[in-house]
Amino acid sequence: MDLKKIEQAVTMILEAIGEDPQREGLLDTPKRVARMYQEILGGIEEDPSRHLHVMFNEEHEEMVMVKDIPLYSMCEHHLLPFYGVAHIAYIPQAGRITGLSKIARTVEGFAKRPQLQERLTAQIANSLMDVLEPQGVLVVIEAEHMCMTMRGVKKPGSRTVTSAVRGIFQKNKATRSEAIALLNTGKL
Amino acid sequence: MDLKKIEQAVTMILEAIGEDPQREGLLDTPKRVARMYQEILGGIEEDPSRHLHVMFNEEHEEMVMVKDIPLYSMCEHHLLPFYGVAHIAYIPQAGRITGLSKIARTVEGFAKRPQLQERLTAQIANSLMDVLEPQGVLVVIEAEHMCMTMRGVKKPGSRTVTSAVRGIFQKNKATRSEAIALLNTGKL
Ligand SMILES: Nc1nc2c([nH]c(=O)n2[C@@H]2O[C@H](COP(=O)(O)OP(=O)(O)OP(=O)(O)O)[C@@H](O)[C@H]2O)c(=O)[nH]1
Ligand SMILES: Nc1nc2c([nH]c(=O)n2[C@@H]2O[C@H](COP(=O)(O)OP(=O)(O)OP(=O)(O)O)[C@@H](O)[C@H]2O)c(=O)[nH]1
Repeated sequence: MDLKKIEQAVTMILEAIGEDPQREGLLDTPKRVARMYQEILGGIEEDPSRHLHVMFNEEHEEMVMVKDIPLYSMCEHHLLPFYGVAHIAYIPQAGRITGLSKIARTVEGFAKRPQLQERLTAQIANSLMDVLEPQGVLVVIEAEHMCMTMRGVKKPGSRTVTSAVRGIFQKNKATRSEAIALLNTGKL
Repeated sequence: MDLKKIEQAVTMILEAIGEDPQREGLLDTPKRVARMYQEILGGIEEDPSRHLHVMFNEEHEEMVMVKDIPLYSMCEHHLLPFYGVAHIAYIPQAGRITGLSKIARTVEGFAKRPQLQERLTAQIANSLMDVLEPQGVLVVIEAEHMCMTMRGVKKPGSRTVTSAVRGIFQKNKATRSEAIALLNTGKL
């Protein structure tokens, strides 16, 4: 990532909106924004599915679900955050169970790019299918887009729900319904 | 506002983070971000207190409070949104009552700049004092900063509360306590 170029660009933006990039509060802003983009958009060149390769040789073939994974990403249309939760379910192939935190790391990895919510959802589902070769995967993301709340149509509180189903969750309606019911059980 | 310069800067940022600004999803992003900054940071040269000059010659000298005004602004350190609610109370001078929506417009006007929450709070209070010449003003802002939730310390749910008191709210503890109690009454 070219931090110097981001710094230059941020200074240009401050000038263009009529601000004085030399005033005290803004002096470090270009540097901060550059470091921040490295943190929140630094996932472009990484392959987040690498986390999933940590596998346990466990004979479990029942559904595993990780719910309410906090999610922060950046809308590729406006470079404003969208945020919410991701829910992931998969039915493993015997001997191919991954670490729970690795699922959350995969979500985070794909989120650290300029994204569309639909693409993010599909990328997570596809990477789980590719690496774990499970019987099926279900990914649901519920998110609020700042580009719809703080500007434009200004609809605070509206949430976008996207899902991606693969394998047995796609073929078998009963399995899918069961997973969706589990999404709705009470909090701990 | 120099929209062309913002567009150039956004293209530079996309390149610097390793993206291809020519891919379909990003083609219009520089234009969109420029329009968006005009919308959400376009308040630098305006004087938001101009809204308050709409006054009604009403003999009311009791506290007027507008609570839970939705607020969206941009953190001047990270150019990420912070958002929440503003609560405004003032005790008018007889004959100097302003329109309720004008109070909300004033909040919005000061929010449309690279801001610090403390400065935003004080600017709103000062502009009410200057224009309405009331007996006193109380401004409270509760906000969540995306720079503390999606990056850095990552503390989603943490909220920052700032306040500014002027005139009788500063001098008279009882009046201030009464206002703060009214902030906590139930929702409609
Ligand atoms: N399906 C989908 N749409 C999205 C995502 N992010 C995002 O900005 N959009 C939509 O992309 C569209 C961009 O439209 P546009 O080119 O007219 O840009 P704009 O800023 O003027 O649109 P707007 O003011 O309606 O938000 C908007 O409808 C916006 O809501 C996303 O993750 N998924
Ligand atoms: N008092 C106050 N502090 C703010 C506001 N907005 C904002 O970013 N800050 C703080 O400004 C400081 C900037 O610190 P820094 O120069 O070390 O930048 P940084 O991004 O590395 O800090 P961080 O990673 O701790 O957020 C942070 O503590 C951040 O929380 C605000 O509105 N009011």
